[in-house]
Amino acid sequence: MEHWRPKTVAALNGQEIKLIKVKGEFPWHVHAAEDEFFLVWKGLFRVEFRDRIVELSAGECITVPRGIEHRTCADAEAEIFCFEPAGVVNTGNVVDAVFTAPTGTTI
Amino acid sequence: MEHWRPKTVAALNGQEIKLIKVKGEFPWHVHAAEDEFFLVWKGLFRVEFRDRIVELSAGECITVPRGIEHRTCADAEAEIFCFEPAGVVNTGNVVDAVFTAPTGTTI
Repeated sequence: MEHWRPKTVAALNGQEIKLIKVKGEFPWHVHAAEDEFFLVWKGLFRVEFRDRIVELSAGECITVPRGIEHRTCADAEAEIFCFEPAGVVNTGNVVDAVFTAPTGTTI
Repeated sequence: MEHWRPKTVAALNGQEIKLIKVKGEFPWHVHAAEDEFFLVWKGLFRVEFRDRIVELSAGECITVPRGIEHRTCADAEAEIFCFEPAGVVNTGNVVDAVFTAPTGTTI
């Protein structure tokens, strides 16, 4: 599975659950109307905010509230579950030629 | 953590993410208006429907659609993540003196 390309593994109640393989730094962005939840399945994952950095290991989770600028990072490959409303664009308010992924992609 | 007592670890977009330690058999029940998603974190977990049984191990997940009667089981202790709308009663349409848990409980 390529990095930073979310794969939807379930859809329910207007929400989607995605599995994402990550490595490197994702662009800074904001989701104006959606909170995002990340659960680390394998490896080490980092969520950076403008004023702090949160380091997460397997089994740890974080909610990124709507409207808060953030970027996600992993120095080595990691595997992440993401839970958020259906149709969210991964780069939020940003369009990035490399990182903006199609929505609704499944494995 | 006691068995079958969901602990809400995050709330977002009107949904809740719960961690549940399970062992034994949960009562048969239905959620009339809510789909439920289960992700197995540790151990072996089983979702029984009236016409089939789904066995899940760590890293495997299942969506139980609204309106479908089911029960959850684990022969040995297991740890499960559950994603569902906020306020769902764990026993759905059933009130069980032992298994019906308060909602909104956190760790």
